[in-house]
Amino acid sequence: MRDPVPSGDPGFADLGFARLDTHRAGRTGDPEVVYGSGKTPAQIVALLAALRSAHPDLAALATRLSDEAVAAVRDEFGAEVTVDELARCAWLGPVPEPRGRVCIVAAGTSDGPVAAEAAATARVHGAGVARIDDVGVAGLHRLLHVRADLDDADVLIVVAGMEGALPSVVGGLTGVPLVAVPTSTGYGTGAGGLAALLSMLNSCAPGVVVCNIDNGYGAGVFAARVARRAAPRDPVGQGEGGAHGARVV
Amino acid sequence: MRDPVPSGDPGFADLGFARLDTHRAGRTGDPEVVYGSGKTPAQIVALLAALRSAHPDLAALATRLSDEAVAAVRDEFGAEVTVDELARCAWLGPVPEPRGRVCIVAAGTSDGPVAAEAAATARVHGAGVARIDDVGVAGLHRLLHVRADLDDADVLIVVAGMEGALPSVVGGLTGVPLVAVPTSTGYGTGAGGLAALLSMLNSCAPGVVVCNIDNGYGAGVFAARVARRAAPRDPVGQGEGGAHGARVV
Amino acid sequence: MRDPVPSGDPGFADLGFARLDTHRAGRTGDPEVVYGSGKTPAQIVALLAALRSAHPDLAALATRLSDEAVAAVRDEFGAEVTVDELARCAWLGPVPEPRGRVCIVAAGTSDGPVAAEAAATARVHGAGVARIDDVGVAGLHRLLHVRADLDDADVLIVVAGMEGALPSVVGGLTGVPLVAVPTSTGYGTGAGGLAALLSMLNSCAPGVVVCNIDNGYGAGVFAARVARRAAPRDPVGQGEGGAHGARVV
Amino acid sequence: MRDPVPSGDPGFADLGFARLDTHRAGRTGDPEVVYGSGKTPAQIVALLAALRSAHPDLAALATRLSDEAVAAVRDEFGAEVTVDELARCAWLGPVPEPRGRVCIVAAGTSDGPVAAEAAATARVHGAGVARIDDVGVAGLHRLLHVRADLDDADVLIVVAGMEGALPSVVGGLTGVPLVAVPTSTGYGTGAGGLAALLSMLNSCAPGVVVCNIDNGYGAGVFAARVARRAAPRDPVGQGEGGAHGARVV
Amino acid sequence: MRDPVPSGDPGFADLGFARLDTHRAGRTGDPEVVYGSGKTPAQIVALLAALRSAHPDLAALATRLSDEAVAAVRDEFGAEVTVDELARCAWLGPVPEPRGRVCIVAAGTSDGPVAAEAAATARVHGAGVARIDDVGVAGLHRLLHVRADLDDADVLIVVAGMEGALPSVVGGLTGVPLVAVPTSTGYGTGAGGLAALLSMLNSCAPGVVVCNIDNGYGAGVFAARVARRAAPRDPVGQGEGGAHGARVV
Amino acid sequence: MRDPVPSGDPGFADLGFARLDTHRAGRTGDPEVVYGSGKTPAQIVALLAALRSAHPDLAALATRLSDEAVAAVRDEFGAEVTVDELARCAWLGPVPEPRGRVCIVAAGTSDGPVAAEAAATARVHGAGVARIDDVGVAGLHRLLHVRADLDDADVLIVVAGMEGALPSVVGGLTGVPLVAVPTSTGYGTGAGGLAALLSMLNSCAPGVVVCNIDNGYGAGVFAARVARRAAPRDPVGQGEGGAHGARVV
Amino acid sequence: MRDPVPSGDPGFADLGFARLDTHRAGRTGDPEVVYGSGKTPAQIVALLAALRSAHPDLAALATRLSDEAVAAVRDEFGAEVTVDELARCAWLGPVPEPRGRVCIVAAGTSDGPVAAEAAATARVHGAGVARIDDVGVAGLHRLLHVRADLDDADVLIVVAGMEGALPSVVGGLTGVPLVAVPTSTGYGTGAGGLAALLSMLNSCAPGVVVCNIDNGYGAGVFAARVARRAAPRDPVGQGEGGAHGARVV
Amino acid sequence: MRDPVPSGDPGFADLGFARLDTHRAGRTGDPEVVYGSGKTPAQIVALLAALRSAHPDLAALATRLSDEAVAAVRDEFGAEVTVDELARCAWLGPVPEPRGRVCIVAAGTSDGPVAAEAAATARVHGAGVARIDDVGVAGLHRLLHVRADLDDADVLIVVAGMEGALPSVVGGLTGVPLVAVPTSTGYGTGAGGLAALLSMLNSCAPGVVVCNIDNGYGAGVFAARVARRAAPRDPVGQGEGGAHGARVV
Repeated sequence: MRDPVPSGDPGFADLGFARLDTHRAGRTGDPEVVYGSGKTPAQIVALLAALRSAHPDLAALATRLSDEAVAAVRDEFGAEVTVDELARCAWLGPVPEPRGRVCIVAAGTSDGPVAAEAAATARVHGAGVARIDDVGVAGLHRLLHVRADLDDADVLIVVAGMEGALPSVVGGLTGVPLVAVPTSTGYGTGAGGLAALLSMLNSCAPGVVVCNIDNGYGAGVFAARVARRAAPRDPVGQGEGGAHGARVV
Repeated sequence: MRDPVPSGDPGFADLGFARLDTHRAGRTGDPEVVYGSGKTPAQIVALLAALRSAHPDLAALATRLSDEAVAAVRDEFGAEVTVDELARCAWLGPVPEPRGRVCIVAAGTSDGPVAAEAAATARVHGAGVARIDDVGVAGLHRLLHVRADLDDADVLIVVAGMEGALPSVVGGLTGVPLVAVPTSTGYGTGAGGLAALLSMLNSCAPGVVVCNIDNGYGAGVFAARVARRAAPRDPVGQGEGGAHGARVV
Repeated sequence: MRDPVPSGDPGFADLGFARLDTHRAGRTGDPEVVYGSGKTPAQIVALLAALRSAHPDLAALATRLSDEAVAAVRDEFGAEVTVDELARCAWLGPVPEPRGRVCIVAAGTSDGPVAAEAAATARVHGAGVARIDDVGVAGLHRLLHVRADLDDADVLIVVAGMEGALPSVVGGLTGVPLVAVPTSTGYGTGAGGLAALLSMLNSCAPGVVVCNIDNGYGAGVFAARVARRAAPRDPVGQGEGGAHGARVV
Repeated sequence: MRDPVPSGDPGFADLGFARLDTHRAGRTGDPEVVYGSGKTPAQIVALLAALRSAHPDLAALATRLSDEAVAAVRDEFGAEVTVDELARCAWLGPVPEPRGRVCIVAAGTSDGPVAAEAAATARVHGAGVARIDDVGVAGLHRLLHVRADLDDADVLIVVAGMEGALPSVVGGLTGVPLVAVPTSTGYGTGAGGLAALLSMLNSCAPGVVVCNIDNGYGAGVFAARVARRAAPRDPVGQGEGGAHGARVV
Repeated sequence: MRDPVPSGDPGFADLGFARLDTHRAGRTGDPEVVYGSGKTPAQIVALLAALRSAHPDLAALATRLSDEAVAAVRDEFGAEVTVDELARCAWLGPVPEPRGRVCIVAAGTSDGPVAAEAAATARVHGAGVARIDDVGVAGLHRLLHVRADLDDADVLIVVAGMEGALPSVVGGLTGVPLVAVPTSTGYGTGAGGLAALLSMLNSCAPGVVVCNIDNGYGAGVFAARVARRAAPRDPVGQGEGGAHGARVV
Repeated sequence: MRDPVPSGDPGFADLGFARLDTHRAGRTGDPEVVYGSGKTPAQIVALLAALRSAHPDLAALATRLSDEAVAAVRDEFGAEVTVDELARCAWLGPVPEPRGRVCIVAAGTSDGPVAAEAAATARVHGAGVARIDDVGVAGLHRLLHVRADLDDADVLIVVAGMEGALPSVVGGLTGVPLVAVPTSTGYGTGAGGLAALLSMLNSCAPGVVVCNIDNGYGAGVFAARVARRAAPRDPVGQGEGGAHGARVV
Repeated sequence: MRDPVPSGDPGFADLGFARLDTHRAGRTGDPEVVYGSGKTPAQIVALLAALRSAHPDLAALATRLSDEAVAAVRDEFGAEVTVDELARCAWLGPVPEPRGRVCIVAAGTSDGPVAAEAAATARVHGAGVARIDDVGVAGLHRLLHVRADLDDADVLIVVAGMEGALPSVVGGLTGVPLVAVPTSTGYGTGAGGLAALLSMLNSCAPGVVVCNIDNGYGAGVFAARVARRAAPRDPVGQGEGGAHGARVV
Repeated sequence: MRDPVPSGDPGFADLGFARLDTHRAGRTGDPEVVYGSGKTPAQIVALLAALRSAHPDLAALATRLSDEAVAAVRDEFGAEVTVDELARCAWLGPVPEPRGRVCIVAAGTSDGPVAAEAAATARVHGAGVARIDDVGVAGLHRLLHVRADLDDADVLIVVAGMEGALPSVVGGLTGVPLVAVPTSTGYGTGAGGLAALLSMLNSCAPGVVVCNIDNGYGAGVFAARVARRAAPRDPVGQGEGGAHGARVV
């Protein structure tokens, strides 16, 4: 049996309140990430510093940050840190050169924060990212207008709340691998995102896979891994923008 | 206060096992219908005969018929009865001249029985009926191909299982009043029709209303009432067929 | 295949934070509407202005407005805007002449905001509107007292929380097409509106269709479309009031 | 502390496969009952015999009997046993003189077995019983026709499936204590009886209490206890039939 | 058909925001009650005044009052009104002489508000009331200690949260009719009262009926109706207190 | 890091259709068990033989056996195998001397199969076992009668369906560690065991832990482990029977 | 029948707002505990004082304390009371010498409060306690690193939120009795702890038992009872700390 | 706007009972597939033939075949068709050369049919496939034994029922993109696959995406698309077998 960690190294850093998994990057290619929900600003700062120290060559990412956590992170790391306020994310350290392209498609404006979390995560995890927003199925021509951008991607993340129909429609238009993310927007029977989740799990389009409700982070990690494997393809050019309306981040 | 039934008439026929509401046609324009599920073939035959007798000028309809019930109905009424085996429906007596047009759109072949129940019900309740089948959103061009037929209708019934995305897409293409019917096809989290139901209730297209799972009958009654009110419009001609691919029943 | 939008026009206005579907009125007869929930007051004002500009001949409607959004809309549009505070709605621009009649029946006083949203929406979408309030089934004579008003309508919207029995009773009294709207009033197993929703989906009265919980807007759009198709019928006269107790809005 | 059983008597009969509670009649006035579901015909016969022997002055009742159990009970007890096949119940021994009146109101024909179980149970537990069948709310005049019978009862059992609206309507018409029993009839979201259960628990009529789905037995025991306490009232005369259409069992 | 209301009287008072059912006392013996939740203090005051005026001989009751509503009621009615702050109830006008006895049994201290609502309601609706508190099944001797008080009642209301086992245990000790009320106390899977509700609906003790979660009002109305019918029994004497530990209200 | 398996031994036997975990007994003290559901009789026989061969000193157990599987096991192993038909279990090889005492308490006769599975499992896993059956809370004296047997055990398994109240009552009477097992008996809202499960998870008695619905096996393994740790206590003597009515297996 | 309480002693203390079960320690070995949720600080103080007085030789414990309750307890009892702020617990009076060892394993930092409640409860109930934190399955080597500590315990409490996989993995590594506690951490479909609860109830590792979501108290009581029965085993020495990384409390 | 289908070609074949989407391969790279559930054997044969004819260069696949459908397919296509009976799949026509590697990991033997469906689908859609079976988390060393095979894959499909913990553990060991598939194996709260589904959606391992319960087909399509994009990588050689224990299909 292969030993999961090198001998003589426990594979984690004991911070008292947490055992940071310092070996994760070695096993999976991606370092541990600070999930900010339920942690104090001080804990988040300490974990980011520990990650930064454990992996000098990799960016350290924190998600689900409160306003207080954002302020604490800015206080501690100053210009070194990048904050995306809509995404509630912050990162510091070297972001990898983009490999492959993740295209993030969002149905409505209220899906924006989840799409932004997915975009920040995918970019920090080493993929190029393009964005297509507000193309819900009630006005199909908006989606058809940017259809060529869909095929240009290595992997798609499709974010939608309400009835969550967008992944089925996109999945019928293209064979690019598609990760669907339901959001908790809506009300009544749609409150909490259950309708969108069930819709995506039961998509009649083949090959749609699904993340937890509002889990832009998980979709971003997964998509970046797919995109990096598909590189060095980059048909429309990183940093140049989509030929058909997609916005490159 | 207006008395709900004429004096001297109880407004129902007592069959021992049931109180048939003989006054319903007077109140609502449509006679009572025999819901076959959970009734014996003999009870169904007796109820159809009583309906036929109470309303000589109207067709008597029975739904949700088992094979045994279909056989009993055929034995009793012979050539007088019409049976739609896919719809599990039978009716006898004069079907009204069609007024207005109900267009029934189905996502897949397994939605056929529910669409057929809706079609038979709407026709027996006095509406003209057109059918568009197997136009699920995974192959959008099939729907766009018959798009003009959608606008030709006075009311649409859109039947879908799985993720139930079709009503949202149709509702974005046309302003014709749209009744969505979820079906119980599917498996896993889609088994029983819950995913399709929630999807339809949370449609991002405005003005989608919903029936119970597999309730083609309810959609048919409702749509016929809407279509009859919109008559004598008949833009493409009853009995001529759809100009764009819809099949007139 | 008929092209869904005229060539040379993308069919939407790009506002940065949203792609407003400027072609929806062309496809469906009704322009896009601003769903205020989850949007900033500034976004709502911008969207209303864009809608107003895209459709000079049609009213622009916003729903689910917070107090802040109402204030911002009044600041921006002044006397041009009409606000219904109970309904949380605001609209500006020419409201169409009423065609047909939507009658909105509410079970209790706590169903008032949803009924008001339905009424404002139906009126802005071009239908005449009548209201019957507080006629829950625990005191049936209140409903029977206004029974004739039910038959005078082209379409009914029946709003109820708690056990949601009112649509079944109304649906047994009249054949006018009936849209049921469950509300989230109640507590315990009734909290959130699930009991009322299930009750309405399983109504023993034929031809009851259902909207999402608290979705007065959706019911209003649907009902207006049905009523407009049934016009120029107007048996009791728009603007004259109901003959039997209904209140014309 | 009062000892729950007399000293020197364990208060139960040990049958090997069961400890029959022989003291229940002493504590509660009603003997234990054989719930047939999941028991073999031989066990049911043995339990009935043990009950008969423990309580010579009281009737022994078995519910939820399969065809096999009915046959075994008839084989064993011959003419001594009474079987109600619709109710799936059997009883032997002296049924008490009826005290008070339980009136059982059923919405539709498919609610018949549950209503019959309630009727048999209430009668065996010492109450007089009247029946009113097939008075669902979709044809309200059928219920209004027998309204006076409602007020003649000491307690009402109202049985309904589908949306379960009948108890709310009945509860608005009379102040007689009302026990609602949801049934598992229906399909889609109504399958299993959940919609009817929730509807009854959230009734807007005051003072409606509820039993488990299909639990005619529980409603019968409860109602008999209420009716017996209200005796010797018997306004319309036991054994004479209802003055207004109710059928005395 | 008997007319539900006397001719020439609509049977309701139109308050603008509500149609108060002034005929309910005539139909059911009990007047309408003001359900305070979701109403403004001013509406509650107006409704209480209208009830008081419509029924000079009966008490007017309001439930689910906020602190603001309690203050408004006290301002308006002064010494005439009685407020139970734990129960969140207020009433004014003549409370009937107590007939029969309702005994309210509560499992824990957090079930107190629901038990108090039931007690106030039953008393205002004309029954005598006794209370037994904090006798949960984890310390069975506390219940056995007051066991004789259970048999002295005409009807029991058993209030419990958490797993809701108390009604099953009480129902095994006595044959007095038993109404179970689940409360929303608890956490995790018990949050909201679902566990207690299901437990009570599935009680192995015969003859347990159930109200909605936290519905002390409904239980109180129902129990008062049962107790009044059982009067003039009063075995332990109204106003004297329980012989065995129950507290008479 | 301690290596989970000895070097040079993969720790499993590859049977083609399964990788039998031959090292489990070394890690946990208990060998793997054959869960018969969904396996063919031939697979079950092969797995039992492999277990028997891998652990000559331990008994091999199979659970959830169909009639066909029981027959196949008897054919293959003849007199060597012991079958408990009620429990649907079979075992072969040396059963350990009993250490400690597991007392299994069941509420009703329909809980028998689950109690039997727990008993067989606990005995095969090396604990002594006592049984107390049919002591549901509706006749509390039956339980109080055998109360001393509860305290004599090292660990209790309490099995109940319906409302699942028995563990709360037992847990209030004794401090012996108590494992509750809900069963799927019941109907309506109790069908499937959800009511019993929730009841047990929310028990007001301290220190009740819970297994999956119908999981007598899991309760038996857990209880045997607790009992073996508590040995060599054996206050009432293994093989002698309970002093107060419990039946020693 | 053995009487559950000594004659002449009611077995409870009547505090007006509560009947404190003073006999519980006699029946179960553990005194009643103050569940602080939903109680006023004054009630909590009074109950702690009454417990302290009833059981001079045992510690009195209160759980689920608000900040206000913690302050009130400190005001009243001063240095006599011990407060664990993370666990929201307070206790006063003599804590027993530790017997046996409970090892508490937590998956992540957000599971800390529940693990702390379990630890405080187990210690106050007389067991020795060790802690292993932040060993979630996404970095398995952290768990394998402390694996020997698992086998050193008499009983394990495994606390996890999210998908709740940790008990299955731990249960595959050791045969020590294992109590799983799901926590309500997480979001989307994991919000509230349902995913973790279901995961634990369906563990493929044999012998995992489960507590309610966030119920560290219940797990602590149960585990202490198991550990005390297993004493005087103490393989690694109370107060010395774990040999392999576990932290002794 | 790019037209979704070439002009002059409707993009579908009308078979009467279905509109076969003949353009899907052009849009997505993969042809339509016959979902056999709910279709007659004759319909399945006709659809396979139509697919075969529309795409001479691609394999035609049918899934979810009954025994009757398998027989009909064999009758019609003889040696041309390949049937996988465990997977309930059949295909005919040229299967592409494998590009990239999909590794399918299954927790238990009862997950076999879903894993087989995923394998057949991935292979027919052009990916190489390796299999690792029966490596559930209760015996972790079985998984660690084949750990190197995980890293050799381009994408993983992890299939598990019960508590569904396997994807979390695998996701912590490797950074290969991981698709989790819950299966409906299990009982009680695990019946139907809900526990496994929720577990996978809430995985604490980053980057796990999920398919519907039992949806091996969907996982296979998705994984093949990812693997094909990662080709021509083939580190261990297609057709040679896994270096560490994985079985190449």
